[in-house]
Amino acid sequence: MNTLEFFFDYASPYSYLASSQVEKIAQQTGASLSWRPFFLGGVFKATGNSSPALVPNKAIYMLQDLLRWTRHYGLPDFTLPDPFPARSITSLRLALVAQDEGKLPSFSHLLYQQIFALGKDQAQVAVLTEVIREAGMDPNACIERAGSQEIKDRLRKNTEEAVERGSFGAPTFFVGEQMFIGNDRLGFVERALRESA
Amino acid sequence: MNTLEFFFDYASPYSYLASSQVEKIAQQTGASLSWRPFFLGGVFKATGNSSPALVPNKAIYMLQDLLRWTRHYGLPDFTLPDPFPARSITSLRLALVAQDEGKLPSFSHLLYQQIFALGKDQAQVAVLTEVIREAGMDPNACIERAGSQEIKDRLRKNTEEAVERGSFGAPTFFVGEQMFIGNDRLGFVERALRESA
Repeated sequence: MNTLEFFFDYASPYSYLASSQVEKIAQQTGASLSWRPFFLGGVFKATGNSSPALVPNKAIYMLQDLLRWTRHYGLPDFTLPDPFPARSITSLRLALVAQDEGKLPSFSHLLYQQIFALGKDQAQVAVLTEVIREAGMDPNACIERAGSQEIKDRLRKNTEEAVERGSFGAPTFFVGEQMFIGNDRLGFVERALRESA
Repeated sequence: MNTLEFFFDYASPYSYLASSQVEKIAQQTGASLSWRPFFLGGVFKATGNSSPALVPNKAIYMLQDLLRWTRHYGLPDFTLPDPFPARSITSLRLALVAQDEGKLPSFSHLLYQQIFALGKDQAQVAVLTEVIREAGMDPNACIERAGSQEIKDRLRKNTEEAVERGSFGAPTFFVGEQMFIGNDRLGFVERALRESA
């Protein structure tokens, strides 16, 4: 069986867009889906890449582009959270805790909704607490575990692995060793899954 | 009647990809197509943007991505010219001469083919001479005119206009004042043309 590996960061709006499509694509191509949180800031640092939002014309355009994509996908109109980009390190560590609880997809959808549909700041404990609860987990226990060395190491390992395999941005997809970067490459991802099915 | 404005540079492989699709899209949507040569190096300088090929992981991935796109479009397999990126200033000035002769589309297709299907260096006079001749123009007369102040000014004006309207990269498309950047946004371009038809 094919696996679609989906490397994402909650700070990345294009990862959010892709998160709304990956389950459907995996289902339609008979692939299993592997959600792989990674830290985009670490990827940028390791590769010499930088956020597109640092070029003013690009930042202005990105907002129009993101609005077009949310309408294309039938999502709520894109909302830029404040601050942007946000600190995602705690929410990414919580993602790994959610993964161990079998709740990573629902945790991710709920959190992305808060961030890019409602404009909430994912670094706020109140935002995270609410999402953890809605995903059916215990906020205090999850937040405590997210601070453990084991979880920190796992996030760092995911990030390092993605960079070693060639990633420089988010979202990054792998179908076997074929890598695809960007929500706008999901058409190629789908084809690769069909061709190797 | 709608107009699709297509800002492109011969140094840009993603502009090449788009050049293979824009006529079909204009035809199918009943739009008129305006080919607008601009100097991507000038856009980068004015906006603070930089070539994606400067990040090593991105450069490696770009080659895979470009090969996927040429296969997707049924073009010859993508070939990286040497050197890359090439100096495109002379070929862009020749594009404006070709425009005055009513030969810009055929000149562009012929030159792009030399560069990204055959790997030729567009800064070589022999390459340009051959393309000018194949496009049905006189090489000596064209090259002489390409060095005129009027042509230089027109290229600079196209570049400045694109930046003022929000561009930061190539290809850039306008449908009225709606801007789209990248070959991978042609689906959105097509939709905008249909919606405003």
